[in-house]
Amino acid sequence: MSQPVSVAVIGVGLVGGAFLRQLALPALAPHFRLVYLSSSTRCIFNAAGTQLSALASATDAPSIDALLTRLTPLATTGKVVLVDNTSAQAVANAYPHFLKAGVSVVTPNKKAFSGELGLYKEIVQAQTEGKSRALGEATVGAGLPVVQTLKDIVATGDKVIRIEGVLSGTLSYIFNTFSPPSPSSSSDLPSFSQTVRVAREKGYTEPHPGDDLDGSDVARKLTILSRIVPELADVLPQGYASVDVQSLVPKGLEGCKTGDEFLEKLVAHDAEYAKLREEAAKEGMVLRYVGVIDVERRVVKASLEKYPATHPFATSLGGSDNILSFTTQRYSPRPLLVQGAGAGADVTAMGVMGDLLKLVG
Amino acid sequence: MSQPVSVAVIGVGLVGGAFLRQLALPALAPHFRLVYLSSSTRCIFNAAGTQLSALASATDAPSIDALLTRLTPLATTGKVVLVDNTSAQAVANAYPHFLKAGVSVVTPNKKAFSGELGLYKEIVQAQTEGKSRALGEATVGAGLPVVQTLKDIVATGDKVIRIEGVLSGTLSYIFNTFSPPSPSSSSDLPSFSQTVRVAREKGYTEPHPGDDLDGSDVARKLTILSRIVPELADVLPQGYASVDVQSLVPKGLEGCKTGDEFLEKLVAHDAEYAKLREEAAKEGMVLRYVGVIDVERRVVKASLEKYPATHPFATSLGGSDNILSFTTQRYSPRPLLVQGAGAGADVTAMGVMGDLLKLVG
Repeated sequence: MSQPVSVAVIGVGLVGGAFLRQLALPALAPHFRLVYLSSSTRCIFNAAGTQLSALASATDAPSIDALLTRLTPLATTGKVVLVDNTSAQAVANAYPHFLKAGVSVVTPNKKAFSGELGLYKEIVQAQTEGKSRALGEATVGAGLPVVQTLKDIVATGDKVIRIEGVLSGTLSYIFNTFSPPSPSSSSDLPSFSQTVRVAREKGYTEPHPGDDLDGSDVARKLTILSRIVPELADVLPQGYASVDVQSLVPKGLEGCKTGDEFLEKLVAHDAEYAKLREEAAKEGMVLRYVGVIDVERRVVKASLEKYPATHPFATSLGGSDNILSFTTQRYSPRPLLVQGAGAGADVTAMGVMGDLLKLVG
Repeated sequence: MSQPVSVAVIGVGLVGGAFLRQLALPALAPHFRLVYLSSSTRCIFNAAGTQLSALASATDAPSIDALLTRLTPLATTGKVVLVDNTSAQAVANAYPHFLKAGVSVVTPNKKAFSGELGLYKEIVQAQTEGKSRALGEATVGAGLPVVQTLKDIVATGDKVIRIEGVLSGTLSYIFNTFSPPSPSSSSDLPSFSQTVRVAREKGYTEPHPGDDLDGSDVARKLTILSRIVPELADVLPQGYASVDVQSLVPKGLEGCKTGDEFLEKLVAHDAEYAKLREEAAKEGMVLRYVGVIDVERRVVKASLEKYPATHPFATSLGGSDNILSFTTQRYSPRPLLVQGAGAGADVTAMGVMGDLLKLVG
């Protein structure tokens, strides 16, 4: 076996915890040495190896700069990977420095890949300079094989025509429930606010459901995918903020401070959503919040759309499933489809670990 | 950039040709050095690099032993990969020697991974000894992300419960056509022999359609997948020959020497197949030839089954699509699904190239 890969892990929340459990699996543990671990308040570093239990008694405050200083010498003698299990912009902003120092980055954090083009280009450039890699399979579809599949499509000379999908587990659940393909009777269907309320109770939404309904999460994922397509490399200068996004947060509710306030006020808009659902049903259609990347038209768009009740986006989705459809020169007229749970700590950690395993050996 | 990876390619047929075109792409070419190339009749070796055009004037006959002798010293100073784009058992049998010599193997050739367990175990063992890897993403589903997805599921500590799918592009086309989910009228439907005849004309079947209808291709793919699942590592001692396979070659037709003879005699069995289709249709079902791996029951089985006309295997498949459904502890009750063209030179070559790219850098 080759020398163990040194791994520095930032973030010990839900995904971070699941990732650390995977890292401790008997079949994986020998390949890695956990050299750094940090929560939002404390950190521990040990070039010879440390463990989660040591973090509780650590006294150092986490510092990105200090971490870079510590990992840089390790990267001159062996492989070092920073695993960013946060969703912090500050950590994302530091990727270029780690990459230039020869430290690879693996992360489910969407911030760096979906923000302004400048940071993204710095990351691409820094990988060349540092002979390190930045991998983010879990940024789209959690553990589903999405990002690598698209990279392989592009790298092997295929041409992407269109990418279309249900990219938010939250919005998937909400519309699978609110607008099912074959309702027994429309009077049995839940109202929109009721659907969102239940989704929140089940833990499918952010504490403030507006953070899901505004479409920004879908826009970030679309940005990540579109930047892999060479023809669209420069189409989104401001990243997710450049995506044509339809927000499902009703006018007047943008300012709600809490999720509770938002849900209370959302009730007043139930009739609007019921009308959309009814109009769709009359045409034999359902509502789905989808992301679309149309390469020829250079359109990257997130919006609520109608799909025939027989379409896979209508019939085949359940729970918080994501579905991604890649239409390419090779995969056409019938696309390559990937579908399954697109959120959850264990499957997200699997996406992170899959990337880390690419860097071994 | 790191030192180019030395690549030896056996096979310049449909897949081999598509692979070589991908290898020559401007973005990929700098990462590789083509050191060896062979057809079934001639070969060329040049440690400094060669190209397809040089093969025509080559005079050496291909020899696996000679190739091993030539690649072994290269593997002591850099990365070397054997790309086996044949379906030859003789090449497959030699993988352990290459792997022990430190030469990685990448292939769409199912023979080594789906034959007797002894060879498979030798390959697994040789990877450890030689610090080399044997990768076969394109052995199942061509370019679809199937093998790596299953490996990641297993490696990250998930438990596979059931794998189910339409694994043969040929049998997918035949039953999508013969038994569609919503036929306008059963009298419009083609007979079984007619369906197979058209499939052959379109190039979807082997020259002798019996080679597809006997289910052996599906059995080989099931063997490859089941061996990735730790609980089933030893369940198929004879490989694909140990799989419980339902052959669709009617009794009495096993001895047909040519595809033409087979098709002529198949007509006499049209009534049997029409009856199966009718019985299924009466229950609102369609016929699909599927492979199933049931981990708890230790069953690996390929057979013609009935599926509800609303099931994804009925509604969502078209052309020669493959579909794979992975039900695991994490991906349940709703499975992870991968679907798309499961045959074709370009997509198969993409699967091969995707594996080769894993070995770079």
